Amino acid sequence: MSSDIVKRVLAGDRRAVARLITMIENDGDEARRALADLYPYTGQAHIVGVTGAPGTGKSTLVNELAKVYRGSGGQPAHSPRTVGIIAVDPTSPFSGGAILGDRIRMRELSGDPGIFIRSMATRGSLGGLARATADAIKVLDAAGYEVIFVETVGAGQAEVDIAKTAHTTIVIQAPGLGDDIQAIKAGILEIADIFAVNKADREGADNAVMALQMLLDLDHASRPTLHHGVMMGEEASTNESDSGPAPSQEQGWRPPILKTVALHSEGIEAVVEAIEAHLMYLKESQTLYQRERERIESELNDILQQELMRRLLDRVKEGELDDLIQRIGRRELDPYSAVRRLIEGEQFA
Amino acid sequence: MSSDIVKRVLAGDRRAVARLITMIENDGDEARRALADLYPYTGQAHIVGVTGAPGTGKSTLVNELAKVYRGSGGQPAHSPRTVGIIAVDPTSPFSGGAILGDRIRMRELSGDPGIFIRSMATRGSLGGLARATADAIKVLDAAGYEVIFVETVGAGQAEVDIAKTAHTTIVIQAPGLGDDIQAIKAGILEIADIFAVNKADREGADNAVMALQMLLDLDHASRPTLHHGVMMGEEASTNESDSGPAPSQEQGWRPPILKTVALHSEGIEAVVEAIEAHLMYLKESQTLYQRERERIESELNDILQQELMRRLLDRVKEGELDDLIQRIGRRELDPYSAVRRLIEGEQFA
Repeated sequence: MSSDIVKRVLAGDRRAVARLITMIENDGDEARRALADLYPYTGQAHIVGVTGAPGTGKSTLVNELAKVYRGSGGQPAHSPRTVGIIAVDPTSPFSGGAILGDRIRMRELSGDPGIFIRSMATRGSLGGLARATADAIKVLDAAGYEVIFVETVGAGQAEVDIAKTAHTTIVIQAPGLGDDIQAIKAGILEIADIFAVNKADREGADNAVMALQMLLDLDHASRPTLHHGVMMGEEASTNESDSGPAPSQEQGWRPPILKTVALHSEGIEAVVEAIEAHLMYLKESQTLYQRERERIESELNDILQQELMRRLLDRVKEGELDDLIQRIGRRELDPYSAVRRLIEGEQFA
Repeated sequence: MSSDIVKRVLAGDRRAVARLITMIENDGDEARRALADLYPYTGQAHIVGVTGAPGTGKSTLVNELAKVYRGSGGQPAHSPRTVGIIAVDPTSPFSGGAILGDRIRMRELSGDPGIFIRSMATRGSLGGLARATADAIKVLDAAGYEVIFVETVGAGQAEVDIAKTAHTTIVIQAPGLGDDIQAIKAGILEIADIFAVNKADREGADNAVMALQMLLDLDHASRPTLHHGVMMGEEASTNESDSGPAPSQEQGWRPPILKTVALHSEGIEAVVEAIEAHLMYLKESQTLYQRERERIESELNDILQQELMRRLLDRVKEGELDDLIQRIGRRELDPYSAVRRLIEGEQFA
């Protein structure tokens, strides 16, 4: 049952982890078998999504967070934990190359055997990338990495996919990148568990914080019960108690808004505390179970879709697809009828 | 064969067009039948994708372009054409509401019966939105709109999907939104047919233009033959001839970089000229045929995927999916094996 690579991944062998992720990117049968074998060993890691527009300083912030978790930051609040970092760039769908600055971060962090860094770019569809990322997370999880950061360029569906995969999602904003309310995309309110306003030493940081607060107020005003506990910078991270009882399932979680200057390692501990507080909230409120259920449902859906297509295309005769495309191009056939023909032809062949 | 709504859409009835697009959003069988009937009448419109980050002034630019095409701009270069505008917001996947500023633009443009405006937001998956947008384009095309603008918040996969659907894709940049090379996403080079640097009266516009030029130079340097013809603002739009023969299939198209101040209607005619020049290039170089083929291929793929899922889920027994999700959650079953079971169960049931 268990192949060599599965055993090596379970033993935490870094080269096996890297190789299996490459196999996943290349979408081979062997990778699928290995993932099935690894699956029982997953579900241990805390998966933290980090998303933000280009220029917000995502990579720097993730690096700093990783350092705190490794105990090499200022004052680690807990014992060191192993960290996996997956940097996903869904905005370079064609190039498929490494991400700028990747080599720099590697140099800074890769000396530590408790950190594994991998960047992934789209090869094929975004669906393929989201799929491959979810599978890479499983590999790191099974290999024993305790905190896994999945870092993505904030970009519509990619953010949503991260939110589906992650337990905790950090949305990074930065001053001067369009801080007005209109520029803050509606969707992020639904996915953000923690807001980090990075580059907070720049002009406009307070405006960015205020804009986010206003949005949160608008959003929460429409909900039955409120939990007011905006954290501002490091000092405010514990003064949540003035508005009533602790967060609960009924009250929900109000995303804290934290100022950071990742480049100077400022405000990082507060973010780590918020990550830990959010995990605690997820566990206590049973939201973790709900999120896990939704994640599995969406993953099952993705795999199903992919597998159905593979099976159908395996059966379509050579040249048949080409012929259909030509006829649709000449407007002799519409794509809906062509699809019906492809599927039903398959069944009666 | 032809239902009432199909006849009315073909006659250009605005209310029928609006109703059919709503039916498409709701993903009904009737919509699919109507689209199949309309299909032979499609393929006439020039589809222009417009994409850019929030705050770049997309909507304003599209409005100005529409005015020029309608002959209400400065000096229309040609006879008025009917214009369809589809504004897609893939970044609000949850809200599904109307886009901010939508009502303002409606008021400004909707008095003209030669313009049809529709905004679409995600209901369900992004795949669903891309699908619905492609179908809405067909409706406008069959209804006789000659130029169809599809405007999307620049966001990874959404941009790519637009590029697949559009004949001509305009990528909008604006100064001060992160102009450095690193912030310009690699993918846009592959999808942009025209660059508009909007808000060009602001500081940093020349830097944005230079950054784009550098990127284009880097990109084109690696290709066998070059076509140097960067258009800068309005004056430069015709001095393309100094670098050799006219664009051809072998030489390719170098995206012009045009400065605009959409708010003050500046530089808009040059963009219209570039759009027309690009269409001419597509036709002369046979690239139009190639693009159309790729578009059909990708569309067929999407519809096939959707239809396979629908058929499978129709056959899955009540509670079966739920049971599988529970078992995956308990790590008793991995999702790959669950999918195999679902598909093979279907075949032998």
